[in-house]
Amino acid sequence: MSQKNSPDFPNQSPPNDAYVHLDDFEWQPFPEEFSEGGIRWKLLHVSPESGSWAAIYDCPAGSSFNAHVHLGPGEYFLTKGKMEVRGGNDEGGATATGRSYGYEPCNAQHDKTYFVEDSEFYMTFQGPLKFIDDEGNAIAVVGWEESQGLWLEQIGAA
Amino acid sequence: MSQKNSPDFPNQSPPNDAYVHLDDFEWQPFPEEFSEGGIRWKLLHVSPESGSWAAIYDCPAGSSFNAHVHLGPGEYFLTKGKMEVRGGNDEGGATATGRSYGYEPCNAQHDKTYFVEDSEFYMTFQGPLKFIDDEGNAIAVVGWEESQGLWLEQIGAA
Amino acid sequence: MSQKNSPDFPNQSPPNDAYVHLDDFEWQPFPEEFSEGGIRWKLLHVSPESGSWAAIYDCPAGSSFNAHVHLGPGEYFLTKGKMEVRGGNDEGGATATGRSYGYEPCNAQHDKTYFVEDSEFYMTFQGPLKFIDDEGNAIAVVGWEESQGLWLEQIGAA
Amino acid sequence: MSQKNSPDFPNQSPPNDAYVHLDDFEWQPFPEEFSEGGIRWKLLHVSPESGSWAAIYDCPAGSSFNAHVHLGPGEYFLTKGKMEVRGGNDEGGATATGRSYGYEPCNAQHDKTYFVEDSEFYMTFQGPLKFIDDEGNAIAVVGWEESQGLWLEQIGAA
Repeated sequence: MSQKNSPDFPNQSPPNDAYVHLDDFEWQPFPEEFSEGGIRWKLLHVSPESGSWAAIYDCPAGSSFNAHVHLGPGEYFLTKGKMEVRGGNDEGGATATGRSYGYEPCNAQHDKTYFVEDSEFYMTFQGPLKFIDDEGNAIAVVGWEESQGLWLEQIGAA
Repeated sequence: MSQKNSPDFPNQSPPNDAYVHLDDFEWQPFPEEFSEGGIRWKLLHVSPESGSWAAIYDCPAGSSFNAHVHLGPGEYFLTKGKMEVRGGNDEGGATATGRSYGYEPCNAQHDKTYFVEDSEFYMTFQGPLKFIDDEGNAIAVVGWEESQGLWLEQIGAA
Repeated sequence: MSQKNSPDFPNQSPPNDAYVHLDDFEWQPFPEEFSEGGIRWKLLHVSPESGSWAAIYDCPAGSSFNAHVHLGPGEYFLTKGKMEVRGGNDEGGATATGRSYGYEPCNAQHDKTYFVEDSEFYMTFQGPLKFIDDEGNAIAVVGWEESQGLWLEQIGAA
Repeated sequence: MSQKNSPDFPNQSPPNDAYVHLDDFEWQPFPEEFSEGGIRWKLLHVSPESGSWAAIYDCPAGSSFNAHVHLGPGEYFLTKGKMEVRGGNDEGGATATGRSYGYEPCNAQHDKTYFVEDSEFYMTFQGPLKFIDDEGNAIAVVGWEESQGLWLEQIGAA
């Protein structure tokens, strides 16, 4: 990031389009710092200007994501399986079964996201996730840049 | 829309979450004003504040969308089939085959989006689409509000 | 815009920061196609990925903007003067007097924005403006790219 | 936040417009947890869906904001004064003098923002700020909801 203050400012180019076939990349393990039970992921896109990103997750029966807060809205498309969000229907949250769509608003807190069956979902995130401990304190903030860094390292391109 | 200027301003609530199982709704015909060949759709969500929306499209072999410009970025998840974007690979665009992800940037012009095989894709749109005629003039601008209006009418809820 | 599908995808850089002193550039005439009465402007920034942009407008007493729709939310900061938005207070809109802040939501229609006194406002736009005729038909859609194109031409940098 | 899955879903209304004259509210002290030297602020708007917000800050000569990271892009309009961002010009950052505009990209880290003279700036934020300690660990994440909560408490409207 460098300062710009030239006489022809602003002068910017449109962003690139992108296309990724899902078989172009292997699944990579999602960090155990943030999940349990063998979740795998593929990062599909990052948008550095707005801070949004897109990924797909493969979640075996019994796996789960650790407690986190969505610092911007997120939209998921569950291609198969069964996912309990915010405790599932029994605890006031949502139990999603494939195929389904869900919208999680800015600041939605997900104490645990649990996969009852083998599941897979594609998700677009506006802004980062804040993973939290039992007291609600931030353990890590994970957004487009951290996700890209991890992914490039995992596929050996860092 | 009414003016607000009260002493406790601003005082706003978080948006609702949402969940839709795809079988909750029947496919509806996508308007022939904007497409050919029997495309059907389901509207899944609208975000009135940012102007984004999400939908899924069922596109028979030989169907197509008319020429349009994305007035904000759009991301698609092609669950099956074969889709030629911006003319496909042969004409400098992209030929997407399922399962795949694509990012179409703000102001991307799609003169024709053609489905070579029976296809289906889920898409999130930031901002509206501008459908254009052969000279590039705007025929219609279709965003969250027009999409919601059409959908509610089609499912008999308007 | 070119297709990307390399093994190290995604691999993107953070956007640049930017800084512009207002005296760095002269005022330029805002097009008479979209305004009356001698409005002048300075374009300050464009964000091509999200389609947002920022500008400042100098509006003499008696000047006005033609009818338009905000295709995404816009926020203004009126540094001085008096501006009637959507007809002003007398017709159900807002009459803004400096210094003040306003939020115009996605799809807000401004049939006429009129300046009762010499006024100036800074505004950030998410997404483009659709200028319309008396029947509500689109005359032009003006976003980051059209604004940048006009500005670069006006300052002789195109 | 409650689950929605009714047959007429989606069915949402446009957001309200908003207008605030700056004299409508008194300046409130900005928390000493995040700043030094007597900075005051007025919150002008929050956008709960996208997580953006707008505020104006009054910064006496010698005051400063503590180290923070912008988790989404931010745009400032410096109405008067002199502000050193990211160390100022001498250390590779920017020294802004009024009147000026600046764009701080997503993930921009501001170790210290220092006001050389009595200054004032209006700023729009997309997404929250992450305040950090000397090791870069998150002390607090402050977005639209935390800002609104503080503001309503300060003006006695909570």
